[in-house]
Amino acid sequence: MDKSEIPQKSIYRISLYGRCLDRLLENDHEMVSSAALATASGVKPSQLRRDLAYFGAFGTRGRGYPVAALRKAIYEGLGRAKFQPVVMVGAGNLGSALLRYDGFKKEGYEVLAAFDSAAESLRGGDIPVPLYASEDLPEFVKKNSVKMAILCVPGEQAQEATNVLVEAGIQGILNFSPVMLQVPTEVVVNNVDLALELQNLSYFIKK
Amino acid sequence: MDKSEIPQKSIYRISLYGRCLDRLLENDHEMVSSAALATASGVKPSQLRRDLAYFGAFGTRGRGYPVAALRKAIYEGLGRAKFQPVVMVGAGNLGSALLRYDGFKKEGYEVLAAFDSAAESLRGGDIPVPLYASEDLPEFVKKNSVKMAILCVPGEQAQEATNVLVEAGIQGILNFSPVMLQVPTEVVVNNVDLALELQNLSYFIKK
Repeated sequence: MDKSEIPQKSIYRISLYGRCLDRLLENDHEMVSSAALATASGVKPSQLRRDLAYFGAFGTRGRGYPVAALRKAIYEGLGRAKFQPVVMVGAGNLGSALLRYDGFKKEGYEVLAAFDSAAESLRGGDIPVPLYASEDLPEFVKKNSVKMAILCVPGEQAQEATNVLVEAGIQGILNFSPVMLQVPTEVVVNNVDLALELQNLSYFIKK
Repeated sequence: MDKSEIPQKSIYRISLYGRCLDRLLENDHEMVSSAALATASGVKPSQLRRDLAYFGAFGTRGRGYPVAALRKAIYEGLGRAKFQPVVMVGAGNLGSALLRYDGFKKEGYEVLAAFDSAAESLRGGDIPVPLYASEDLPEFVKKNSVKMAILCVPGEQAQEATNVLVEAGIQGILNFSPVMLQVPTEVVVNNVDLALELQNLSYFIKK
């Protein structure tokens, strides 16, 4: 199946199902019903069945899905087994915090290097990857066949940094800058705005 | 209007419009068309008009929205002006990285304290807020009227930590643990799974 035919939201949910299956496997479950897996993932069973059908996974009525086989199908489909190099753009407050987080590497994403327009002044800090000036980015990205970037620059620099990334051949950007980036259709951007998440939550707090 | 009538996704998008309006105001724009604001926010103009109508904001045909007034209406509606205390649960790798990030405070969210089951061994590190043992959480939350928490514990501790938070009176949880939390309907959870975001991106990368 052509990847572009699967909605991005389905891919999100399918990753979540994978997470739940990890846990079921750890706890020695052999089978799981679509209802139970849907509840654990926070979706409707009908949605789960539609999503899994994209990957050719169909449960057996009354028995559900075999945990290990479904998990394998999902991770092969998602291409998780592959190692994926990443660059960090912006090594200020948030960028350097994320560089110290080891959760990316655990999942197969290695941040090869960080780039910052103030690289000179940041050097000597506790940044655990090589740190280069912004101008060195295009050559590095091409030389190391990097296709993914994490963007942690201030809002006013985000679009310009994005243009450089796209020009250099980056196809996927995890954007922590509080800006909606304009990119060509073949480039995918996922936005994570941490302050916006808190703002959204606080709206629902009873005073 | 009753808050519960506005869909959570609209609140998300409305926060985004606020971000775009910040920028327009900085650049001395007085008016903005719904089409321009929609493009900058990555949504359809019809969606934007529907969202803003929840807050009683209606543009003028042919002229659009007044930037300063719309921004004010949005932030008052979202309740952003208010200071909101937050606790961090889990001060390991990701938790301590986020504690060093100053973006929350800028938006009016102050992390008052962090709680960790291994607080003893983490003390003396570079955690910039008071760090307490997990058992101290319920009393602290009640005493300081904290309604929001950021959850950064490992997956296998997440649900138990959540139960404690809910019991203590927390109404909103920003969840960084890779687990779908089960909470009562009156508690809102926003999930941020950083590795999942990368995984999702990498699916769309051409090999």
